Amino acid sequence: MGRVTTRRRIETISADRRTDRFDTLAVEEPLEIRVDGSALAVTMRTPGADFELAQGFLLTEGVVRARDQIAGIRYCAGTVDGENTYNVLDVVVHNPAIAALEAARRNQYTTSSCGVCGKASLDAVVTTTSHDPSDDPVVFSATTVATLPERLRAAQKVFDSTGGLHAAGLFDPSGQALVVREDVGRHNAVDKVIGWALENNLVPLRGIALCVSGRVSFELTQKATMAGIPVMVAVSAPSSLAVDLAERSGVTVAGFVRGDTMNVYAHPQRIVD
Amino acid sequence: MGRVTTRRRIETISADRRTDRFDTLAVEEPLEIRVDGSALAVTMRTPGADFELAQGFLLTEGVVRARDQIAGIRYCAGTVDGENTYNVLDVVVHNPAIAALEAARRNQYTTSSCGVCGKASLDAVVTTTSHDPSDDPVVFSATTVATLPERLRAAQKVFDSTGGLHAAGLFDPSGQALVVREDVGRHNAVDKVIGWALENNLVPLRGIALCVSGRVSFELTQKATMAGIPVMVAVSAPSSLAVDLAERSGVTVAGFVRGDTMNVYAHPQRIVD
Repeated sequence: MGRVTTRRRIETISADRRTDRFDTLAVEEPLEIRVDGSALAVTMRTPGADFELAQGFLLTEGVVRARDQIAGIRYCAGTVDGENTYNVLDVVVHNPAIAALEAARRNQYTTSSCGVCGKASLDAVVTTTSHDPSDDPVVFSATTVATLPERLRAAQKVFDSTGGLHAAGLFDPSGQALVVREDVGRHNAVDKVIGWALENNLVPLRGIALCVSGRVSFELTQKATMAGIPVMVAVSAPSSLAVDLAERSGVTVAGFVRGDTMNVYAHPQRIVD
Repeated sequence: MGRVTTRRRIETISADRRTDRFDTLAVEEPLEIRVDGSALAVTMRTPGADFELAQGFLLTEGVVRARDQIAGIRYCAGTVDGENTYNVLDVVVHNPAIAALEAARRNQYTTSSCGVCGKASLDAVVTTTSHDPSDDPVVFSATTVATLPERLRAAQKVFDSTGGLHAAGLFDPSGQALVVREDVGRHNAVDKVIGWALENNLVPLRGIALCVSGRVSFELTQKATMAGIPVMVAVSAPSSLAVDLAERSGVTVAGFVRGDTMNVYAHPQRIVD
């Protein structure tokens, strides 16, 4: 368990020769998350911080909203060739939100009477979250925001020799990292940092910025909203629906943060000179 | 429908000033895929090529294996404010694989008696696919493989002014692109090109290389295997489980294809000088 990287024999081909050598790869393994003994979801993740991942997933899916709803977490005894795989987690939850559990289990819309549209997706998030980030008065200086991608990368370099891991980090207004996590899946990296915060009684994450190594999708903005995070920072572009959700839920989104320039797609008032 | 990009008002912040301007974003909207009237999955996708996306998804999930199983596809009449959202598709399928339908619906393992592990995930793909790529004798010259990422990018530039879209393309051994598709989701871009191939009676995709703009995950290798694609080419790194599956299912994986060098992680015999 907890193997973040692994070594494999590969062949490197260049213009004039082929070389056999060993290379380091990011590990990807399935994780089944169960709630009270019943399967909820399987995600392909990089092992490590699995308890955080499960808690972050339950929070961002709306199944729990507070630390004290998590009664316990343990690896199940599933084995392969006599060894525990550490790929099945069971979370005992006090008073889970049943509708959210069902929705996460199905990965489907409950009703399509609305016609399935972006707006319905936004409404679902905004009406579900227990941690509304919209009234958070925090401000980050543009100078600090500009440093966050580099700080994230610096923290990532310690672990990442594979070029194959996404990263997510939580930062305070001074630019200090509270936590940085990595994963082959961008959504898992975000769930891990949010799960870490839940475990440390820091949800809602008022006054905090979430920085991600890639793009900003609807799903990542949903996770930020569900955790009450007021500011998202990314190296790359957001999608239309991510910006629409951020606009609705009151989350600041800064994208293309490169050097000392950035684009702010929603709620620019939280980024000051 | 079919809107790939959209314009939004944003604020650009640089060291010495803030400027209001319009920016182009990649559109992200939910697509609900139904089979015979019953909801199967919701994916967040960039509109356009939705019929291809749905067919590719059904093939790569193992619900169908051949073109003649698709009896018809239509947008459902779901409306918002009196306008069709074009976000719900119903596919009428002859003889769908019931076990695959159920698995896709649940997004869960049928049984965890095996302990949930990477090996079980590999076994599931290898025993499910109807289009085994392992005995495909095709070879690609290293020189041609080295050009594929640039050819993919060149095709993408026509559409992509957002910096926010993943791309996937199918290429023949001469380096000619059969089809290139884009999406905010990497898996959707791959489903679109595979769905295009199914629609054109080109599955199994023997003798063809799939080139993707990002990393190679287990899920993308699964999709290649299910479509009988013998060669995958990527700009970035594969994960451990992607390489394990490629090894098992007989797919060549070339990653970090940059300039005239590349790393070959599985079945290098299909890449020749």
